[in-house]
Amino acid sequence: MDKNIKVNKERLISRLDELAQIGALEGGEDFPTLFDGVSRLALSDADRQARDLTVSWMRSLSLTIHIDQVGNMIGIRPGEEELPPVLLGSHIDTVTVAGRYDGSYGVMAALEAINVLNDQKVNTRRPLGVAAFTNEEGVRYTPGMLGSTVYVGKLPVAEALATRGFDGSTFSQELDRIGYAGPMKPGAIHPYAFLELHIEQGPLLDQQNIPIGVVETVTGITWLEATVTGTANHAGTTPIDLRRDAGLAAAKLIKSLREIALSIGGNQRATCGMIAFEPNAINVIPGKAILTIDLRNSDGDALIRAEELLHTRAKEIEDSDGVSISVRPLEHVLPVEFDPIVVDAIEQAANELGISSRRMISGAGHDAQLMAGICPTAMIFIPSRNGISHSPAEYSSAEELETGANVLLYAALKLANQKG
Amino acid sequence: MDKNIKVNKERLISRLDELAQIGALEGGEDFPTLFDGVSRLALSDADRQARDLTVSWMRSLSLTIHIDQVGNMIGIRPGEEELPPVLLGSHIDTVTVAGRYDGSYGVMAALEAINVLNDQKVNTRRPLGVAAFTNEEGVRYTPGMLGSTVYVGKLPVAEALATRGFDGSTFSQELDRIGYAGPMKPGAIHPYAFLELHIEQGPLLDQQNIPIGVVETVTGITWLEATVTGTANHAGTTPIDLRRDAGLAAAKLIKSLREIALSIGGNQRATCGMIAFEPNAINVIPGKAILTIDLRNSDGDALIRAEELLHTRAKEIEDSDGVSISVRPLEHVLPVEFDPIVVDAIEQAANELGISSRRMISGAGHDAQLMAGICPTAMIFIPSRNGISHSPAEYSSAEELETGANVLLYAALKLANQKG
Repeated sequence: MDKNIKVNKERLISRLDELAQIGALEGGEDFPTLFDGVSRLALSDADRQARDLTVSWMRSLSLTIHIDQVGNMIGIRPGEEELPPVLLGSHIDTVTVAGRYDGSYGVMAALEAINVLNDQKVNTRRPLGVAAFTNEEGVRYTPGMLGSTVYVGKLPVAEALATRGFDGSTFSQELDRIGYAGPMKPGAIHPYAFLELHIEQGPLLDQQNIPIGVVETVTGITWLEATVTGTANHAGTTPIDLRRDAGLAAAKLIKSLREIALSIGGNQRATCGMIAFEPNAINVIPGKAILTIDLRNSDGDALIRAEELLHTRAKEIEDSDGVSISVRPLEHVLPVEFDPIVVDAIEQAANELGISSRRMISGAGHDAQLMAGICPTAMIFIPSRNGISHSPAEYSSAEELETGANVLLYAALKLANQKG
Repeated sequence: MDKNIKVNKERLISRLDELAQIGALEGGEDFPTLFDGVSRLALSDADRQARDLTVSWMRSLSLTIHIDQVGNMIGIRPGEEELPPVLLGSHIDTVTVAGRYDGSYGVMAALEAINVLNDQKVNTRRPLGVAAFTNEEGVRYTPGMLGSTVYVGKLPVAEALATRGFDGSTFSQELDRIGYAGPMKPGAIHPYAFLELHIEQGPLLDQQNIPIGVVETVTGITWLEATVTGTANHAGTTPIDLRRDAGLAAAKLIKSLREIALSIGGNQRATCGMIAFEPNAINVIPGKAILTIDLRNSDGDALIRAEELLHTRAKEIEDSDGVSISVRPLEHVLPVEFDPIVVDAIEQAANELGISSRRMISGAGHDAQLMAGICPTAMIFIPSRNGISHSPAEYSSAEELETGANVLLYAALKLANQKG
C-alpha cells in the first residue's frame, strides 16, 4: 500500500489528552507530577465518561458498536468481504494512581488507524475493529484482564457479574449503573486476528533506544506465599545456637531467589515484594515471617524448574535453621507464545516503514495473552521512559506514540488484506 | 547463721498468687494459657491495687514505708546500727500481656525474706529493705527502668513527671491519680548494697538444670535502624542486572548479622526483629526496606566492633547491590559489671545452702543495672521454663521460686552483717 498514508500525530495526541482529562488527578505545588496522573477504576463514574467519549469517537468514525454482557466494547469498520475482523485494542481502565498511556494508548491508536483509513478512503478485505476490554487492571475487581478472560470463554459471564470489588461493590450492579451491560454474548465476534499496542512497562526499549518491540511471548507467572515458622524469643538472652529465627531464615530464602534467577538464566525473574515478621518487635527474634515470591519466565519448563529449586532451597533452610517453611501457591499463569504470522506481520510493517525493532518478551500480563487463546495474536511495544508505568510519571514521547501507531496501522492492513 | 532458717514456700507462693489476681487476664476455652496471664501497666488502676497490696504487706511486716516523687516504694526494717540499708527488690508493673513472675517475684521474695527474719526474731547489723521501682517495663512510659533511672540521678524528676505515655496520658497526672506521688526525694535512702532476684528470661538455667544464676554482668545494647533505599520497579519486566532491590539488600544485611555474631563470638548477639518493605506489593521490587538491629554484648569493646562490622558490611552491600543504606542509632546502653563482693556473697550463699549455681550474664535490662551506679549490686536468676518471659506462659516451679528466695535471704544476711 501507499507508504505515504500515515497516522495523524496531532489527532492521536489530542485524543489521548482529552481522555486523560477524565479521572485526572489533582496535582498541586507539592505534587507536580500528579498533574499528569489519572485515576479511572473499572466501572467507576470516570470509566463511564471515558467509555462515553470512546463510543462517541467510534460513532464519528461510522463504526458499528457492540457492547457485550460484561461491558467489553467493540466498534467494527466493514471490510470488502464478510469475514471475521482484525481487532485492534486494549483497555481504558487504570490503576488507582496511574499514568495516561497504559491501555488507553492501544485503544486511541486503534481509533486513529481507522480514522486515517476513513480519511484516505482505504478499504480492507476483512473488517477492522477497535476493542476496549473491561477491568484489565484488576485493581477494583479480581481477576485482572476480567473482560478478555470472559470474552475467550475462560470465565463464565455469571461468575464475572457476581464479582465483589475491594470496595464492597458488585460488578453487575456497577456495570448496570454506568449503562454498559450490553446485549452481546462475549466472544460472539470471533476475530481473524488480534493486535495490542502498548507501552513496554519495562526499560529495555528506552535503554536500547529502539522504537518498536515485537512481542513474541508473554511471560509465565508463579506467585507463591512462604510462611516461615520458628520460635519468637528474647533477642538479648537467647544464645545463637538455641535460636530458630524465622526472620533470618526468610532472609536466606530471599537471597536464594536471586541465586535461582541467575542459575536458571535466560529471562528468569524472581522477586520478594512483600514481607511481614511476627511479632515484629525490635528486641524479639521473629517467630514467624511471611513473604511473597514472584517467579516469571517465558519458558514454562524453566519456570517449573525455578519453583522446584525454591522448594529444594526451602528444605535446606528448614534443616540448617530449625524452622519450618510452608509454601502456598497463589497463582500460576502459563507463558503464552504469540502467533508467528502476526509477529512477522508486525516486524515486516516496521521494516517496511524503516523503523528499527527487536523481538521481546512481555514480563507483564495483557488482554492479548487471553485473546491468543481464540485467534492469532501478537503485541507491539513502544518505549516507556525509564520503564516506569502504573505511575503519573509514565511517559512516552509524541514521536514514540506516533511511530507505534503507524506500525499498528501497517500490521493491521497486512492482516486485514491477507489471502486465505 | 542457723541454716535451718528458711523461707516459707507456701507463704511466698500465696503472695505471688494474690498479686497475680490483680490485672489477671481473662482466659477462656480458646485461650487456656491466658488464665495464668497478667496485665498491669505502670500507674494503671491495676498497678494502684498491686501497690496497695504490697504496701499493706510491708506494713504488716512493720516496715517503715517511703514513697518517692516518682512512686518508687521502699519499706525499711531497722538494723542494729544506723547504717545504710541492704535493699532487695525489683518491680511490680508488667508488659501488656505478661506472666506473673517477671519483677513481682523479686519483690515478693524480698517480703518473704523479711517475714522469716521477723518470725525468727533475727536481727541484722544493717537495716534491710524492700524496693519496688516504678515503670520498669517501659511499655506505658519510655524509658523502661524509669523509676530506678530517676532514683540514681540519671533522669531529673521533672522530666520523668512530664513523660507522655503511649496512650496520651501524663506520668505525673497518673501518678497523682493513683495516689503514689510521694514526698521523698529519689535517692534519699542511699543503700549499702542492692540485690535483685529475677527469673532468667532466657533458657540457660532451665536447659542446664542449674537452680541459681549468679549474674556478674548486664549486657550492653546497641539498637539501630537501617534504611535501605533502592528503586521500586516491576517484578516482571525489570531485568536482574537493572535491579536495585532494597528487599534483597536488606536480606543480605540480616544474613550478615548472624555472621557478625559468630565472628565476634563470646556472648555477642545480633538480631533483626522488625522489617518493612515499600511499596510492599507482590509484583513490585521493593524500593525501600527499613529494619531494626539489636546488638548485645557484655564486653563493651566487642559490642563496638560488632557495630563497626555492621557498617562495613552495609558499605559492601551498597557497592554490590547499587542501593544506599543509612544506619541510625536508636539506643546505646553500656554493659554493666556487677560488684564482685556482692557476686561472691550470692555465690557463697548458694554454696553454703548446698545449691548449685553458675555465673552468667543478663541479656535483658533490669533495675539492678541502674542501682549498680550508686551502690554495690548484683542479681540472682532462677530458671524460667524454656526461657519464656513477657508471656502468660512464663513459668518457674514452686521449688525453683523457693530456692531463689533462700539464696536471696542468705546473701542479704551476709551483706547486712558484713563488717566495715
